[in-house]
Amino acid sequence: MAGSVFGNIFKVTTWGESHGPALGAVVDGCPAGLPIDEEYIQKFLDRRKPGQSEFSTKRNEADKVNILSGVFEGKTTGTPISLVIYNNSQISKDYSNIAECYRPGHADYTFDQKYGFRDYRGGGRSSGRETAGRVAAGAIAVKLLSEFGVEFTTYVESVADISIDYSRFDKSEISKNMLYMPDKTAAEEAAEYLKNLSADKDSSGATVKCVISGVPSGLGDPVFDKLDARLASAIMSIGAVKSFEVGNGKLASKLKGSENNDEFYSENGEVRKRTNNSGGILGGISDGSDIILTAAFKPTPSIYKAQNTVNSKNENISLEIKGRHDPIIAPRAVVVVETMAAIVLADALIMNCGSRVDNLKKIYDR
Amino acid sequence: MAGSVFGNIFKVTTWGESHGPALGAVVDGCPAGLPIDEEYIQKFLDRRKPGQSEFSTKRNEADKVNILSGVFEGKTTGTPISLVIYNNSQISKDYSNIAECYRPGHADYTFDQKYGFRDYRGGGRSSGRETAGRVAAGAIAVKLLSEFGVEFTTYVESVADISIDYSRFDKSEISKNMLYMPDKTAAEEAAEYLKNLSADKDSSGATVKCVISGVPSGLGDPVFDKLDARLASAIMSIGAVKSFEVGNGKLASKLKGSENNDEFYSENGEVRKRTNNSGGILGGISDGSDIILTAAFKPTPSIYKAQNTVNSKNENISLEIKGRHDPIIAPRAVVVVETMAAIVLADALIMNCGSRVDNLKKIYDR
Amino acid sequence: MAGSVFGNIFKVTTWGESHGPALGAVVDGCPAGLPIDEEYIQKFLDRRKPGQSEFSTKRNEADKVNILSGVFEGKTTGTPISLVIYNNSQISKDYSNIAECYRPGHADYTFDQKYGFRDYRGGGRSSGRETAGRVAAGAIAVKLLSEFGVEFTTYVESVADISIDYSRFDKSEISKNMLYMPDKTAAEEAAEYLKNLSADKDSSGATVKCVISGVPSGLGDPVFDKLDARLASAIMSIGAVKSFEVGNGKLASKLKGSENNDEFYSENGEVRKRTNNSGGILGGISDGSDIILTAAFKPTPSIYKAQNTVNSKNENISLEIKGRHDPIIAPRAVVVVETMAAIVLADALIMNCGSRVDNLKKIYDR
Amino acid sequence: MAGSVFGNIFKVTTWGESHGPALGAVVDGCPAGLPIDEEYIQKFLDRRKPGQSEFSTKRNEADKVNILSGVFEGKTTGTPISLVIYNNSQISKDYSNIAECYRPGHADYTFDQKYGFRDYRGGGRSSGRETAGRVAAGAIAVKLLSEFGVEFTTYVESVADISIDYSRFDKSEISKNMLYMPDKTAAEEAAEYLKNLSADKDSSGATVKCVISGVPSGLGDPVFDKLDARLASAIMSIGAVKSFEVGNGKLASKLKGSENNDEFYSENGEVRKRTNNSGGILGGISDGSDIILTAAFKPTPSIYKAQNTVNSKNENISLEIKGRHDPIIAPRAVVVVETMAAIVLADALIMNCGSRVDNLKKIYDR
Repeated sequence: MAGSVFGNIFKVTTWGESHGPALGAVVDGCPAGLPIDEEYIQKFLDRRKPGQSEFSTKRNEADKVNILSGVFEGKTTGTPISLVIYNNSQISKDYSNIAECYRPGHADYTFDQKYGFRDYRGGGRSSGRETAGRVAAGAIAVKLLSEFGVEFTTYVESVADISIDYSRFDKSEISKNMLYMPDKTAAEEAAEYLKNLSADKDSSGATVKCVISGVPSGLGDPVFDKLDARLASAIMSIGAVKSFEVGNGKLASKLKGSENNDEFYSENGEVRKRTNNSGGILGGISDGSDIILTAAFKPTPSIYKAQNTVNSKNENISLEIKGRHDPIIAPRAVVVVETMAAIVLADALIMNCGSRVDNLKKIYDR
Repeated sequence: MAGSVFGNIFKVTTWGESHGPALGAVVDGCPAGLPIDEEYIQKFLDRRKPGQSEFSTKRNEADKVNILSGVFEGKTTGTPISLVIYNNSQISKDYSNIAECYRPGHADYTFDQKYGFRDYRGGGRSSGRETAGRVAAGAIAVKLLSEFGVEFTTYVESVADISIDYSRFDKSEISKNMLYMPDKTAAEEAAEYLKNLSADKDSSGATVKCVISGVPSGLGDPVFDKLDARLASAIMSIGAVKSFEVGNGKLASKLKGSENNDEFYSENGEVRKRTNNSGGILGGISDGSDIILTAAFKPTPSIYKAQNTVNSKNENISLEIKGRHDPIIAPRAVVVVETMAAIVLADALIMNCGSRVDNLKKIYDR
Repeated sequence: MAGSVFGNIFKVTTWGESHGPALGAVVDGCPAGLPIDEEYIQKFLDRRKPGQSEFSTKRNEADKVNILSGVFEGKTTGTPISLVIYNNSQISKDYSNIAECYRPGHADYTFDQKYGFRDYRGGGRSSGRETAGRVAAGAIAVKLLSEFGVEFTTYVESVADISIDYSRFDKSEISKNMLYMPDKTAAEEAAEYLKNLSADKDSSGATVKCVISGVPSGLGDPVFDKLDARLASAIMSIGAVKSFEVGNGKLASKLKGSENNDEFYSENGEVRKRTNNSGGILGGISDGSDIILTAAFKPTPSIYKAQNTVNSKNENISLEIKGRHDPIIAPRAVVVVETMAAIVLADALIMNCGSRVDNLKKIYDR
Repeated sequence: MAGSVFGNIFKVTTWGESHGPALGAVVDGCPAGLPIDEEYIQKFLDRRKPGQSEFSTKRNEADKVNILSGVFEGKTTGTPISLVIYNNSQISKDYSNIAECYRPGHADYTFDQKYGFRDYRGGGRSSGRETAGRVAAGAIAVKLLSEFGVEFTTYVESVADISIDYSRFDKSEISKNMLYMPDKTAAEEAAEYLKNLSADKDSSGATVKCVISGVPSGLGDPVFDKLDARLASAIMSIGAVKSFEVGNGKLASKLKGSENNDEFYSENGEVRKRTNNSGGILGGISDGSDIILTAAFKPTPSIYKAQNTVNSKNENISLEIKGRHDPIIAPRAVVVVETMAAIVLADALIMNCGSRVDNLKKIYDR
């Protein structure tokens, strides 16, 4: 039942419920000497903040991060970094009507089955708010990776059937529209679709893509901690994610070997690939090209339409969910996907240092 | 760089290279008192054996499992179970032409990048043969789960664009055709497709589906060891898997909340769901309905067509791969998907026993 | 470098430096349904509070614990429990003279060697204050164990050469004298000794004994997670502990087999032992009799006497340590030994639930 | 119940029972490029072989190690190293009289309590033979450490009350006498003592000391994976060990701070210590001086004297143990202590590489 610790060396523990006094994370195993401050981390938390757009909830969550340990004179000390985000006074009564009932698509029923009872306020630990701790911790991983030239480009690739058109791909557009799509036209079309859906008391699924450049080759630890296996674990652990793909993903099941293989070639003394169908990972180890991930998010399960369900007394009931809920999960989850991927890569980076005797000797040479 | 241990309590360590003297696994944390013998395990290994069909390699791999510890008088003792599969005299010269070159779609290049050198014979540790240890270990997990009524149905769902038709679904058909498809017509069509592909020195991708019934509700450990996250990690760690889906999977990204939510209802005092779009997992915890997973396998990267690539001296070369290679990976991987899923579930089952104080008291009540 | 997470399932992460804004712990894997509140935990923290006696430091540390997550309506929910203890405004200038120098017997030098720099204020992470998080977390373990009838008796057994006389053993005396000794006469003698030592600007070592009754047989996981190995790890991780013994401990090296073996006998249908030289553990597994541990604490390294040492510029210097430091560590560490032992036992208790298939079936029987 | 995996990155899994077909270990996480062969490992196994002296058992255990994976062309490949030691045809009937009874000082009773039944042949998993796997795995750790100049001196320091005299210390003597004592006179005296004890059907306790030179400063991961905590865990996990000490050990509890502190001084630009009471570890991190450990072994519990005990039917019985048993455990355990310490240090060495951003950059600098 312990499942809130992630990572082998760069080890993240998250804690906190939607309506408790605070949420947070502890990062153990971050190397000493990394410059970091609350301002840096805050930028990531701001990206998952609700109330940013007309498609996200109107609750006022300041989500201000506090560093309580592990940083001294602006640098990490190598000791655990404790990050806390205090919850503003949440009014719990919005959720009182769900205390006794099992919302379709939610974890109410399974938490009761597992633990015997649950903190029902706002979803408790199964709320999307839980990801605040992940984002704060993952921001430190992004910072660590940035020291090695690693960069992330993460965005919403599709909303229902509306996909971005890569011929219109514009990275700068991602932070400009409320759906974090790198294609203004697609973003406008999707916005219109969501508006109508909201009016219909419904919600939509979407996909998020994460492209990571500058990753050194050699990261990932076969056979069970292959880089793609670790990334899959990290991304699938985000609430509402129903599929994970790397590179060509599911499409690879439809291709021929001659179509899917990436040819190597040598140029200026470096080994490169003509295509990147593998998504930057071969045999579970990074190959130096871009790492490409896709996650599919289910539609928000909290919809305003009346739904049939049961309560904890096992009675059939009709439920109308109140409160404020986004009609789409993916835009706010973009930064969650990015930071979870960063945690995996930071961990793999540190793990890789011990993989060769000559590497160890570089450090211990006296 | 340590990545060959999987699981929190039901802990599996695998070892072995394609052309070394043996491969194997150690299962630590299997409860005592489980009846098990070599014959039971052997049936699972036989399902991944090559030479079963015209689409799998003709190498003669007996893959006979030996139990070296942890079983006494036909039952597990609670101590580690060591499983060994000796390699028959493999003739390495088939692979001598690849010692120096980086095969497209293979891990040759990344292993060299990570470890500085590699056992190039037959792919070494990155060979599909590595999964023999997983299957042997996972067979014990299947046995443990069977004591609780858990059952697996695993099969090839599609080969390239040829999908099974669920109106023709016939479970008994799975073991009858060489592609492990539960639809005779689709299997025949796919066989024809692969035959032509082989003639063309090419290979094909495919998908594998695993449906698990009888899983108790309450398994899975949020937030990082959610059941779907653990399953994703297990399945994505299998060589050639490029996507992982649970329930509706990627399709969920295209649906509305009102379409994707599964309504609960009460019948005969039990909570049930009208649909199972979630694939048996809600909030990362099993809900008692069937668990449904889909894995996409890329086409076999070893194709007989000439391919451009580089060698370890960084020279551009043309490569024609020799030896015997399946034109499709998925059929032999069906049992690998099944046993890896079983390892995750066995681990989650044992983990779950401590999730409630009242559960613990059932055992310690004196 | 990640070393702040302890336990397999009942998993404790601690964080915090002596002079940072706060210290704390996260307990992951505590079963749901355990009644717990801040008041219960506070009693344990109060036992390690300084300023309790004339032999402990006069700094005013309120050490008030706050539960930030994982407890709802007075009971644990099975999700991570976050515990925070805010530091009162610590005036750092007391320690400014040690920023640049390596105190004998302290971790200043080794932290610099490992991490390149350190939070020098009050010892930072290597301060005894670090144990506050352990005690808060461990109090929850004690509570869990108390549900199964487990009880702890922990005390100072000796101060330098002054040992308690077991013919005068009085459990109620432990909390009455300032040295936590269960023998009033020995406590008075030791107090007198320490008074003279303080006048001489020196400090003293001591031993702490922990006797644990009511532990069910069967706890501990051979061969590496034997109960005594886990307890050794837990106790030796407490600052200043230099030896760990179980049962007869080092004395066993001087005995004959016929003296050291504990004979079993049967009485009223129960298996018992005539003696308990083994300290309640056989083959790394609890045998149902009292578990008996002894830890030796070195003398407080911070003494007021002038000492020769070096500074971070590698210059030989003479150092006089300022500030307030206990002349003895052990009395305040009594509760740390107790709570660390409890964390190990709670973890082993939960781990043990999966050791037999029949145990698992008790829970899953449907 | 999973307790047979040890280490964070340099991860050792052992398996095997006294009278099963084989015992062994898997070493995962050993860096690639380390020269190793069976001959090197065999030397360590030979040091724990019985039948070496008149005080060890006469069973014929060849203990020949086989490397089944992870080594290619004489060097480690970075993949798991599987080590197997086949048991020669053990005749089990010697042990048949103990199948039903609980030997005093043995784990028979506790294994039955934990697992419900046990492999009673020769002690099964709780036999001293279990350490063969540890020694084989640990030999690889010693080899890795030797590349960095680390050296071990391990010996029996005392047998009952007969201690070595350090004025007569002679390292070369260790391998010359059958008790592995570095003092010929003490060894002779102890041999005489044991001879008389054997005649009296009794056994003796002893202590083992391990001194490790050349360990780089900076190893160990506070607060729970402090180097001494990890070493304690490793050494206490060896059967029959009842106490663990580092440096002055228990003696520190009797000393004053002014006596126990080690003064630093600077010489030729290096920081040194005038004494080494701390045993080479400060704040849980190696300080560059010798690491000094002491383990106390209880007397062999299998004695030929008649003992009162109970059987598994709960009946009081008298037991006379047959078979061949050493009257002292420590000499054969010398190499076990050494190799377990090596596993801890190898793991800490690799862990330390990620502790500083500048260290990571040394490897990733492009």
